[in-house]
Amino acid sequence: MVTNQQTNAEIRRGRPEPRSGANIIRSAHGEYRVTDLGRARAFYVDTLGFVETEQTADTLYLRGLEERDHHSLVLRKSSTPGAGHLAFKVASEDDLDRLAHHVAAAGLKPCWLASGEEIGQGRALRFNDPFGLPLEFVAEMTQVERLLQRFDLYRGAQVMRFDHFNCQVPDVRAAYEWYSAELGFGCSEYTVDDAGRIWATWLQRKQNVHDIAVMNGTGPRVHHFGFWVTDPLSVLRACDVLAADGWGSSIERGPGRHGLSNAFFLYLRDPDGNRIEMYANDYLLADPDWEPIRWTLNDPRRATFWGHMPPASWFDDAALCESFEDGQLLPTAPAQLYDRPDHVT
Amino acid sequence: MVTNQQTNAEIRRGRPEPRSGANIIRSAHGEYRVTDLGRARAFYVDTLGFVETEQTADTLYLRGLEERDHHSLVLRKSSTPGAGHLAFKVASEDDLDRLAHHVAAAGLKPCWLASGEEIGQGRALRFNDPFGLPLEFVAEMTQVERLLQRFDLYRGAQVMRFDHFNCQVPDVRAAYEWYSAELGFGCSEYTVDDAGRIWATWLQRKQNVHDIAVMNGTGPRVHHFGFWVTDPLSVLRACDVLAADGWGSSIERGPGRHGLSNAFFLYLRDPDGNRIEMYANDYLLADPDWEPIRWTLNDPRRATFWGHMPPASWFDDAALCESFEDGQLLPTAPAQLYDRPDHVT
Amino acid sequence: MVTNQQTNAEIRRGRPEPRSGANIIRSAHGEYRVTDLGRARAFYVDTLGFVETEQTADTLYLRGLEERDHHSLVLRKSSTPGAGHLAFKVASEDDLDRLAHHVAAAGLKPCWLASGEEIGQGRALRFNDPFGLPLEFVAEMTQVERLLQRFDLYRGAQVMRFDHFNCQVPDVRAAYEWYSAELGFGCSEYTVDDAGRIWATWLQRKQNVHDIAVMNGTGPRVHHFGFWVTDPLSVLRACDVLAADGWGSSIERGPGRHGLSNAFFLYLRDPDGNRIEMYANDYLLADPDWEPIRWTLNDPRRATFWGHMPPASWFDDAALCESFEDGQLLPTAPAQLYDRPDHVT
Amino acid sequence: MVTNQQTNAEIRRGRPEPRSGANIIRSAHGEYRVTDLGRARAFYVDTLGFVETEQTADTLYLRGLEERDHHSLVLRKSSTPGAGHLAFKVASEDDLDRLAHHVAAAGLKPCWLASGEEIGQGRALRFNDPFGLPLEFVAEMTQVERLLQRFDLYRGAQVMRFDHFNCQVPDVRAAYEWYSAELGFGCSEYTVDDAGRIWATWLQRKQNVHDIAVMNGTGPRVHHFGFWVTDPLSVLRACDVLAADGWGSSIERGPGRHGLSNAFFLYLRDPDGNRIEMYANDYLLADPDWEPIRWTLNDPRRATFWGHMPPASWFDDAALCESFEDGQLLPTAPAQLYDRPDHVT
Repeated sequence: MVTNQQTNAEIRRGRPEPRSGANIIRSAHGEYRVTDLGRARAFYVDTLGFVETEQTADTLYLRGLEERDHHSLVLRKSSTPGAGHLAFKVASEDDLDRLAHHVAAAGLKPCWLASGEEIGQGRALRFNDPFGLPLEFVAEMTQVERLLQRFDLYRGAQVMRFDHFNCQVPDVRAAYEWYSAELGFGCSEYTVDDAGRIWATWLQRKQNVHDIAVMNGTGPRVHHFGFWVTDPLSVLRACDVLAADGWGSSIERGPGRHGLSNAFFLYLRDPDGNRIEMYANDYLLADPDWEPIRWTLNDPRRATFWGHMPPASWFDDAALCESFEDGQLLPTAPAQLYDRPDHVT
Repeated sequence: MVTNQQTNAEIRRGRPEPRSGANIIRSAHGEYRVTDLGRARAFYVDTLGFVETEQTADTLYLRGLEERDHHSLVLRKSSTPGAGHLAFKVASEDDLDRLAHHVAAAGLKPCWLASGEEIGQGRALRFNDPFGLPLEFVAEMTQVERLLQRFDLYRGAQVMRFDHFNCQVPDVRAAYEWYSAELGFGCSEYTVDDAGRIWATWLQRKQNVHDIAVMNGTGPRVHHFGFWVTDPLSVLRACDVLAADGWGSSIERGPGRHGLSNAFFLYLRDPDGNRIEMYANDYLLADPDWEPIRWTLNDPRRATFWGHMPPASWFDDAALCESFEDGQLLPTAPAQLYDRPDHVT
Repeated sequence: MVTNQQTNAEIRRGRPEPRSGANIIRSAHGEYRVTDLGRARAFYVDTLGFVETEQTADTLYLRGLEERDHHSLVLRKSSTPGAGHLAFKVASEDDLDRLAHHVAAAGLKPCWLASGEEIGQGRALRFNDPFGLPLEFVAEMTQVERLLQRFDLYRGAQVMRFDHFNCQVPDVRAAYEWYSAELGFGCSEYTVDDAGRIWATWLQRKQNVHDIAVMNGTGPRVHHFGFWVTDPLSVLRACDVLAADGWGSSIERGPGRHGLSNAFFLYLRDPDGNRIEMYANDYLLADPDWEPIRWTLNDPRRATFWGHMPPASWFDDAALCESFEDGQLLPTAPAQLYDRPDHVT
Repeated sequence: MVTNQQTNAEIRRGRPEPRSGANIIRSAHGEYRVTDLGRARAFYVDTLGFVETEQTADTLYLRGLEERDHHSLVLRKSSTPGAGHLAFKVASEDDLDRLAHHVAAAGLKPCWLASGEEIGQGRALRFNDPFGLPLEFVAEMTQVERLLQRFDLYRGAQVMRFDHFNCQVPDVRAAYEWYSAELGFGCSEYTVDDAGRIWATWLQRKQNVHDIAVMNGTGPRVHHFGFWVTDPLSVLRACDVLAADGWGSSIERGPGRHGLSNAFFLYLRDPDGNRIEMYANDYLLADPDWEPIRWTLNDPRRATFWGHMPPASWFDDAALCESFEDGQLLPTAPAQLYDRPDHVT
């Protein structure tokens, strides 16, 4: 249920014109570090049914059934788990240049990958955002076969496409302001704590609930990558198949329905502890006059509409973020607000 | 909608004590003749997801995901399509003996297969019923691994188990009387023509709508074998997968909901033209005081609850039946009543 | 996954001939005591979508969409919650007499209700079983309109029919033996503790997993009444509707899939704390040669196939049973074995 | 299956900058003329479950469960059926002025409705497009309660929101060019006849397959309004509920899956013969580098992926369009290309 009686003045309606001048289309792919590529493939490909586009000596490139871009999930062999980068697709090469110029002027440290330097991609811009999140922007992707109507190949969770990033940062309000004003993200829904302070925001460029959610928490950390499935039955099938294949312990939370976003969800921990979400049933958000929906942190229907409490691990654990400067995992700072609802299991 | 205002006196309530003294548990498996085993496997196993138990030089033994008996569908290589035999499971070896004695006394010609003579089976009794349908009865089946919770192996239509036979005979009333009185089948639902004459009966031993349906038509012919799937989505998935694999033309009728039985159905023609049904959503029928449901042939909601007309082929085509005496396909006689509703496509 | 390597000698295969000589068809209806009929109707009828057949000053008679018997759930106003009676349908009036004679000879105290004494029923036999469970047996029920194809009336969880009772008794082995030998129940699946002792049994007369489950626990108590729904989506819809109507806190456990029985389940506590289960996706069990499936209590996939732990309340709480002698709730005795798995939430 | 080997040069990639300078967000609502408001409400509200926002003496304003705009379907009492107007939402009032100026300069005849002149709307711009289709544009709509999480109110087909218009015009190529170049629509998929000439185009502003499809046919006519439902089960439920309520004959085509768009569809004729589609399962289309998918008219998987042929009525019948000048229904001209595939039922 929506608690929309009052609104927070600092939350904008609609998607503002970005100061960066860059037209970001959508979140596009995420990269996790994994310690064992074979085990990762067993989990993601053999059981969950991600489509394998390509594998190199140290990296696995996966996509969903409806995707024609080369990859939407990258798994890179590393000595420790963690989040490599969060990639957004922009409208054109010019958008990359505008963005690079804008963030350099603001003191961030953009760097470039030449076309093909990351397999399946054109020229890519990378920088850690002011909060440490490792962002990548790309305009061009190698096109591969779209398998939407290859129903004979549907397996496991029948993952359709990448949907969103969810991240934790110590100062949510600052992060909201940066993504909104600099990059032009709109706010679909948000959470406030008991004092009415902004606790989390769901931010969108494409026309559904979010491309990136930013939550109050120890950060910078990547909480999860969300993948879209067509319906709740795909989520239940994921549970059944995971359990049948011996991956039952990967199920951390759900299946259930979020109050916020209305999504039917399932949270999984991959063999390295990186978290992904299977996500269905959110809604179209195309209108510029959208009024962001406000939830209070302790509303029992916010986290799970049916009233189930999330487990403590869902708040405790998240992936550390890689620095583009040295490839090291960035240190974190504690959350500025209390980092979870009053009741967890 | 049920048109139950009047009932036909010749239709019994409940399941009568069978004169044969044999306790038939349920319909158990069907055998079709196919002209190309490889093509049949491509259709049934690779696309529809039947589980392959075993293959010999000339025969393929398949089963559903929930079944632990060796097979529920037998595909035997032959020069022409057709129905080999329709098998029922009985409670014990004694039931086989009682039944053999009873039908021999009535002038039928029972013959025996020794245990193992048909792979995966104990001793089997076979005879063509008074209408020519090739029946088999067996008490013991080789037990194999039940895959109900091997969700990782679910594919295609996710066929769970054999459900029923549907057959055409020229004299439905006589066939009803024989199956009811001699073998102890109960009637769940039935159809009458505009003159109120019995046109088809759905007959059950196990506790759902039917183990065998007998319809007025050119016969003896086997109209279809029905396989049970858990829900309508399995039926839709079957359509998607068949079309993706190039078997779209095998879809003859449906998906849709039957008025009679309430089943969500799909009729397929295998590569040899033999017909199978994917069948979900009928109901529990355990009570001996069940009042058979009466439908009129031309009620538009009987055939398809939503009003869709069946295609003419659904009435024209059916599998010829093998004789146990010489393996030849039996000649047919025309239906005694008009053999279809007034409106077909 | 099934742990069937060894079997318990005291568990019979198949359904034995009952010593009572009574042909029990199936579990048929349950009666709960509720303290506020209006609140109970709001929960069961308005939200969950049970069909109301009739209401008297102190009792509400409900049924599912596929049922033609007058009621399958009786809610009787009382000062305290509890279980009134557990009713089974038998094949004929003679079965009632045979059963009454048999249990009286064994020292139980059968009593009779005349036809119509309980609304919607013929003559009924009642007695508390040797463990205190309040059983009723009836052959004839008033027939009412079956709403299976009145899809316009489907609401809430779209409850189809009664499925089973689940009860707790201190001595499960004795209860199994009585239901098996005296009443002719077969065992579909069972649970043993780490010492291999029988901890729970699922017992059936109709052809699915159970009509009554008997679990080790403080007893006599009724753990839940199980109602059958067609598929997991009905269960998810129940959660959504309950939450939307403000009954979210009634959700105690699930949705999830049981390993034992394969059922997709949801456990709810009604406004008085009585427990019901929404239950889908078990299987046909018709064969007399069924080999009971053996599970160990601490197999994490037994309780929830996906590995979720049940809450402690699921073991702690259950409904006390009424005595037919004085209408008082019977005292309980503690379980003989440890009463839950090692891990609960 | 996609037949994308060659592409048509006149089909643009991506969404071009519109010459009109107006930012059209999405298709928003459609108006049908109905001859009996009560009968229309019985069909749309009571059976299909559209939400009624408001009714005046001659008009019924309906919406879907996820919508917060005042209406997405308008049913206006009239002496004959027909299409009143097709409304698009634009980003701002300025967009309306730019668009009015642009089309007036091109010789069309824009007219204005003041805010509130049509209930629930701000200022609206109307004109018949060059092909006669009656378009409306509006920036501001009265906001009403969004019922997305009022699962207790979900009924019938559980219609979520308006999705698209489908129209017939004699010269599809000209219509494509106008919608693309003047209004900035992108093309997701299109159909060519055997000679490779453009036969139909699916055009989008919001990020899925289409806001408006333009097909070759007698025109100007409105073929259908498409409404989005969450999944195929909502479509099946629509069939069941329609049949149970006596509206079975309203089902014209489907349920089935379109090859083009991948949508799971159902076409209904309302009591006046106006056509609507229940529509699920298409895909996200956000990228500007999207390559339009090309289908050939006679590809049997284009119309229905499973191979079912559409009925002739689906091509013969469509709603005439109202002129904004005099309220009369516009005359039609015949299609320039043959107006259907070679095979229909």
